[in-house]
Amino acid sequence: MSKYLSERLAALTPYTPGEQPQDQQYIKLNTNESPYLPSPAVVAAVSEHEAEKLRLYSDPACTDLLKTAAAHFGLQPDQIMPGNGSDENLFFALRAFCDENHPLAYADITYGCYSVWCGLMHIPSHIIPLKEDFTLDPADYYGLNETIVIANPNAPTGLALPRSAIEGILKANPDNVVIVDEAYVDFGGESCVPLIDRYDNLLVVQTFSKSRQLAGARLGLAMGSASLIADLNRVKFSLNPYNINRLTLKAGQAALEDTVYFEKTRAAIVDTRTWTKQQLEARGFAVLDSRSNFLFASTQKKNGGELYRKLKEKGVLVRHFDAPRIENWLRITIGTPEQMQIFLNTLDKIMEE
Amino acid sequence: MSKYLSERLAALTPYTPGEQPQDQQYIKLNTNESPYLPSPAVVAAVSEHEAEKLRLYSDPACTDLLKTAAAHFGLQPDQIMPGNGSDENLFFALRAFCDENHPLAYADITYGCYSVWCGLMHIPSHIIPLKEDFTLDPADYYGLNETIVIANPNAPTGLALPRSAIEGILKANPDNVVIVDEAYVDFGGESCVPLIDRYDNLLVVQTFSKSRQLAGARLGLAMGSASLIADLNRVKFSLNPYNINRLTLKAGQAALEDTVYFEKTRAAIVDTRTWTKQQLEARGFAVLDSRSNFLFASTQKKNGGELYRKLKEKGVLVRHFDAPRIENWLRITIGTPEQMQIFLNTLDKIMEE
Repeated sequence: MSKYLSERLAALTPYTPGEQPQDQQYIKLNTNESPYLPSPAVVAAVSEHEAEKLRLYSDPACTDLLKTAAAHFGLQPDQIMPGNGSDENLFFALRAFCDENHPLAYADITYGCYSVWCGLMHIPSHIIPLKEDFTLDPADYYGLNETIVIANPNAPTGLALPRSAIEGILKANPDNVVIVDEAYVDFGGESCVPLIDRYDNLLVVQTFSKSRQLAGARLGLAMGSASLIADLNRVKFSLNPYNINRLTLKAGQAALEDTVYFEKTRAAIVDTRTWTKQQLEARGFAVLDSRSNFLFASTQKKNGGELYRKLKEKGVLVRHFDAPRIENWLRITIGTPEQMQIFLNTLDKIMEE
Repeated sequence: MSKYLSERLAALTPYTPGEQPQDQQYIKLNTNESPYLPSPAVVAAVSEHEAEKLRLYSDPACTDLLKTAAAHFGLQPDQIMPGNGSDENLFFALRAFCDENHPLAYADITYGCYSVWCGLMHIPSHIIPLKEDFTLDPADYYGLNETIVIANPNAPTGLALPRSAIEGILKANPDNVVIVDEAYVDFGGESCVPLIDRYDNLLVVQTFSKSRQLAGARLGLAMGSASLIADLNRVKFSLNPYNINRLTLKAGQAALEDTVYFEKTRAAIVDTRTWTKQQLEARGFAVLDSRSNFLFASTQKKNGGELYRKLKEKGVLVRHFDAPRIENWLRITIGTPEQMQIFLNTLDKIMEE
């Protein structure tokens, strides 16, 4: 830290992203990426012709992508804003709808960036513990008079709320924005997009990083009433008007259009998840009922941190959070069936040691 | 604006980027893009193989790009941080080194985003007028006890300070960060990168949007002492750890490596600028001594706004700022010699009307 850093930032604890080791090849089940390549249409969209156009700024209004996204989700283009990853959209939303005097409410066990953003922007956090079994009680969020963010399905648990439960929270907080972070919704959750036209306090955030195989392209969509989206654009145009590069805009559009590939790959992930869960349960693991592209699992027989380290030693990367309540759990991304077989074989060796 | 928007943002005036019209073809001399394609090495780097890897997150540490950039600029990798465009790096720097109690000093006529970011982050602005001839008096910046940002060369004037003048400002403000925004430095300015090892309060910001033909890729570099760069990484990892997409990391690396193409294209721009300036002066225009890839020009014979509109009607886009002191001036990006000839022919027709 330099002596020039604003005192207000000195206490900040930045987010620690999952390891992206460059040193050796791992079976990489630690950052919830897709094991499948992007759609061939996406690869074709990132053409030499488009690379040559990089000399020109991207369209700050993202007109073409918004047109495609609006048709895909049954919304109007002015109800959607693309961001440089879902993270940027969430940051913009917190900047727009929270401040020093207007807190953010969220679960004690959820996506780690919410608390980091609150730290960066001096937004008070209202942290609401999940129940003992990691489920969320919607009633805990009624009438808070605070902005609310709920990851649904939640990370790292994978547990999901039905749309009706979110609807109850929306009804109970008409004067506050409820942000639903649907990063993992395509793997078995109920999206709240169909509620957008009925609740002007609903903001839904989705990402292309998981179910659309574009983690490295950095693209997310915020969706809500035209007036909420106008607020987000106000922040975007005050921070980084050209926030999305040209190739990502093209890749995103192609990914949305290839619905056949999307359906095929997400179905494959769900099938592999079901199989892997059965396999883990057969080995005595507790495994939560995931609606995401990962499983959250623990065993009485070995400590979570130890399991993580031994798996890494043997070339399999999973995610372990050294945090209260979940220090004995592992978050395991769903890869291909072959990768999950190797993961299970490796696990069996470790358990026998 | 929705009823949910934080009151603190209600008064915000977002930045207005230059027009990116999608409706018709223009000779586009309004956003300081390069008229030349990216290097063939850049186009080759954005390959099908790299597009397939988009399923994986980008390296948040940007290791490969930093290694190449460090070799190129004669720095260590920990003295550099890449951003999603220079705008993001500047935003991160203001977040790190300014706050409600620590103002930012900058010129009255300069890059418009500085004031917008101050508005967004509630940073007090200390606006220091340029002299009558649009030059900056370094002495105005001595001993301010404020963070300072200077665009050098400045936009939209194109005027540059010698390195020694910036060094004077650095010496006179040892307890404050001086940010030098070198977006246009490659077209004839003196970079302050060689001062980095001597002044730990110096932060230099450069972009790939102008001299490296990558406006649409979104890439900039912040360079300074390792401790200043650590502060910026603290903000980056608290906001958007994966801020740069994979293809842009590859494109940027290839652009830095192709120094022959870089030298050739920047020399072409400088030659065309010299010729265009002479042509405008021969027509009675006042033209500032630009060290950038644009000219700032005005005439007594026609109002700046009127000229801008008539040029646009005839298919030539230039930039006009409806702002005090410069409302009679036009900022004209340097295109190819052929484009500048069309611009001049069009101008001649308008002046004869």
